[in-house]
Amino acid sequence: MSGRAVCLISGGLDSCVTLFIAKEEGYEIHGLSFNYDQVHKKEIRHARMIGKAAGVKNHVVYHLDKALFHGSSLVDKEISIPLNRDLKTIGGGSVPSTYVPARNLVFLSLSTAYAEMINADAVFIGVHATDYSGYPDCRPEFIESIQQTINKGTRRGVEGKPVMIKAPLLYLSKTEIIKKGLKMRVPFDLTWSCYKGEKKACGVCDSCLLRLKGFQEAGYPDPVPYQSYPSWYILK
Amino acid sequence: MSGRAVCLISGGLDSCVTLFIAKEEGYEIHGLSFNYDQVHKKEIRHARMIGKAAGVKNHVVYHLDKALFHGSSLVDKEISIPLNRDLKTIGGGSVPSTYVPARNLVFLSLSTAYAEMINADAVFIGVHATDYSGYPDCRPEFIESIQQTINKGTRRGVEGKPVMIKAPLLYLSKTEIIKKGLKMRVPFDLTWSCYKGEKKACGVCDSCLLRLKGFQEAGYPDPVPYQSYPSWYILK
Repeated sequence: MSGRAVCLISGGLDSCVTLFIAKEEGYEIHGLSFNYDQVHKKEIRHARMIGKAAGVKNHVVYHLDKALFHGSSLVDKEISIPLNRDLKTIGGGSVPSTYVPARNLVFLSLSTAYAEMINADAVFIGVHATDYSGYPDCRPEFIESIQQTINKGTRRGVEGKPVMIKAPLLYLSKTEIIKKGLKMRVPFDLTWSCYKGEKKACGVCDSCLLRLKGFQEAGYPDPVPYQSYPSWYILK
Repeated sequence: MSGRAVCLISGGLDSCVTLFIAKEEGYEIHGLSFNYDQVHKKEIRHARMIGKAAGVKNHVVYHLDKALFHGSSLVDKEISIPLNRDLKTIGGGSVPSTYVPARNLVFLSLSTAYAEMINADAVFIGVHATDYSGYPDCRPEFIESIQQTINKGTRRGVEGKPVMIKAPLLYLSKTEIIKKGLKMRVPFDLTWSCYKGEKKACGVCDSCLLRLKGFQEAGYPDPVPYQSYPSWYILK
């Protein structure tokens, strides 16, 4: 038994693989999902299903009013989500409109509060810095820095047993993450990655494109239904 | 004109002085207060009055469900607030039961999100590391560290104009803070510091004791009514 861990479950593929890694490491898992009035709120239903499939001890869906998070195309329907981008441009340079202000900073802060409250040793988060969408809060330097901040600014930190932020996918590519998930028999059919919250995944937003590329390279068909597939995707 | 700033307004004395410092520096001020179902929720009413008195441009009271913050005597009525402590023991060593898990980490994270959203340059917070209650998240090392984390994990950070965390009271004593406030004609009568949310301030919790000691040393009577005063307080 490795103790207790808080696992951030977004409903997406990365946090799902991360959750199953935490489970494999023997943690008693307390799932945490955030409803921030995201356009793709549908992911929360998927987060619940994934938590259930992983047999989490408890699952909190925490509501964060979007009053502090406007200005992102994932929150404001008026701002358009980038579509049909060239894979080479995704993550290259500028921060896209899907960036939600300080999102992982907020999520990890609240997760740390929760971990202190339930006396958990770790918080698992599914961020990774390769094949990503150019979000600053998915980079190793951010994860290292927030760990330092937690060490200095929390009761457990000053008592010498800080809540540890665990990001086991940090240096993996999307393809490697999918391969890892396939080995662990992760229920990819329950995951939802598309930024649009429609019936089928759109197949054209950054998140769909990165996901399909990952499945393609892993040589395994994505079990989730799509409205359309990019021309380069052959595993339909 | 110094641009725009988010000011954390708790309703207490420190954040009130901080707010008037920000005002004096010429910022357009956007107040932010948190309702986390604290026992002394009364402070939020005071926060609103203070914001009004300072002429803030806008004031958001943000609700944070206490589902992630139990285990503090400021949130759970079942846990007792330390009373009648010797002034010398307050802040000396162990973290008191009034510690709220990762509170300033959560507050500053959400403030940073808000600042990015409204394009503010700074977040003002009234923490100070002397005459404090032993909270790890009031120390300079925490404030320095979260600034680093913000620099690395936000859009404005990677674009080279990070939201700056400003804690102008960080190295001041309570007495110095009160003297500073008196000079600026801060409306101390509108502030609420007591951890109990009763009609009059209790005069026995850590917060009342530190406040009364500050006024005593500043040689000015505290304008707020108390149920009782410690024996050493002479400016009744």
